[in-house]
Amino acid sequence: MPETASAAVTRASIGDSEFDRDTAVTRRAPGVYDIGLSAGWTIINAVNGGYLLAVLGRALGDALPHTDPFTVSAHYLTASRPGPAVVRTETVRTGRTLSTGQASLFQYDDDGNEVERIRALASFGDLDALPDDVRTSAKPPAIPPMGQCLGAEDGPAPVDGGSAIADRLMLKLDPATLGWALGQPSGRGEMRAWFGLADGRDADPLSLLLAVDALPPTAFELGLKGWVPTVELTVHVRCRPAPGPLRVSITTRNLAGGFLEEDAEVWDSADRLVAQSRQLARVRLG
Amino acid sequence: MPETASAAVTRASIGDSEFDRDTAVTRRAPGVYDIGLSAGWTIINAVNGGYLLAVLGRALGDALPHTDPFTVSAHYLTASRPGPAVVRTETVRTGRTLSTGQASLFQYDDDGNEVERIRALASFGDLDALPDDVRTSAKPPAIPPMGQCLGAEDGPAPVDGGSAIADRLMLKLDPATLGWALGQPSGRGEMRAWFGLADGRDADPLSLLLAVDALPPTAFELGLKGWVPTVELTVHVRCRPAPGPLRVSITTRNLAGGFLEEDAEVWDSADRLVAQSRQLARVRLG
Repeated sequence: MPETASAAVTRASIGDSEFDRDTAVTRRAPGVYDIGLSAGWTIINAVNGGYLLAVLGRALGDALPHTDPFTVSAHYLTASRPGPAVVRTETVRTGRTLSTGQASLFQYDDDGNEVERIRALASFGDLDALPDDVRTSAKPPAIPPMGQCLGAEDGPAPVDGGSAIADRLMLKLDPATLGWALGQPSGRGEMRAWFGLADGRDADPLSLLLAVDALPPTAFELGLKGWVPTVELTVHVRCRPAPGPLRVSITTRNLAGGFLEEDAEVWDSADRLVAQSRQLARVRLG
Repeated sequence: MPETASAAVTRASIGDSEFDRDTAVTRRAPGVYDIGLSAGWTIINAVNGGYLLAVLGRALGDALPHTDPFTVSAHYLTASRPGPAVVRTETVRTGRTLSTGQASLFQYDDDGNEVERIRALASFGDLDALPDDVRTSAKPPAIPPMGQCLGAEDGPAPVDGGSAIADRLMLKLDPATLGWALGQPSGRGEMRAWFGLADGRDADPLSLLLAVDALPPTAFELGLKGWVPTVELTVHVRCRPAPGPLRVSITTRNLAGGFLEEDAEVWDSADRLVAQSRQLARVRLG
């Protein structure tokens, strides 16, 4: 078998990947879904917020008449843990172009009480039905070729080795935003990386929900250490991504009063701006 | 009476203004509020989305243990009309620093059916309890002095004279973003203005919810005409605004597939970035 064909069969495809397996929801009743949150998408012990968003997106894509997330706004209430969870959805409005839904993820705490982890409002549509017009003035981020960017496997771990999610991602960080890993943060609220799934599954609208919250926090480059929990995260998916690695650029302009915003944009291999997001996060000043 | 004192008594203050009167909600039951949506905040016949956000914010500020909106994410479902409406709130989670709530605004349609107009998730806190640290890299927008900016009263109406909201606002647009009013749109997705309430009421966190959605659409400067309905709008309030006029800067980078984002930032007279917002809107290409 030629090497190219061999490489093709070892790549995971959409529907048959770690990401698909770990976001799979089982419909228990109309609009109600069971899922086991995987320990494979944690940072230290916290389940990644982008992975959670993809889980909610998957449930809503099943519950609503439209399958593609256009805009998802999530408020993070309590920290999710690996293990069983239930997603309850509500269809708020169905329309010809867009449908709006709500989803909440619940888990049981140590005392057996059901606790809400995250609640989201979302509008879904059909990305393939959009017209082809593009009048964007946005430019792809200035990021070196992938071979010049650095991942966890490139020597002194720039991404904390204690994070299981590092094994699931193909994350190559722009050296210009890696000063923090060498104890020399740039002071600029910027983080840039090439992004993909480690098993080679291509990007789709659901994995974009993961991509916007998968890089190290910009706070690291601002010289802050410690946890930067998300309060609220909104993603706009603007285009179905082309196959190939994504480029993710995150910027923070306003760190004030113990909060900061993280603005992410995601570009595909065809130089299309495929997703934009903004989150409000709390910081502990170090 | 000295002229300055006379001017002071004719200025509306917070709690005693058109904006306060028209966002006032009456508690009918725990978490349920009645309001008459004022025709004074309409553009043509549509009730302004920022005014609606302020109404929801006012209800949530009463229902939740915290009074200041920190982040509000609203999905716009159907067009609101002037007249009676009810806001139903739910307390999702209460915490020491932040409380999260949900609010929906309903009206009756011509057939007597209750229709949901807008649904929002929001996290509220106490802006006065935030630490004073500011490490922002954001700069105030480049906008000429107010005397060089233009409002509806300055000759050929730059803002459509058919909009009642024009009488409620002190809106002075940067001439550099007014090409559309002269049939010469710049092609740049930018809109900048000095912003205040016409009766002189100072800004507060609630009026910031109005400020982020009160300028003409950036689509006008992109050469598009017609309606640009909001799908989703998220606001972060980052600081209690100082007295005096606000500067609002709105930018659009990505017009594609019939949708665009509008990013707004609001600066106060003390040069603090007091609010950031992003909305996803639909466009009709002209």
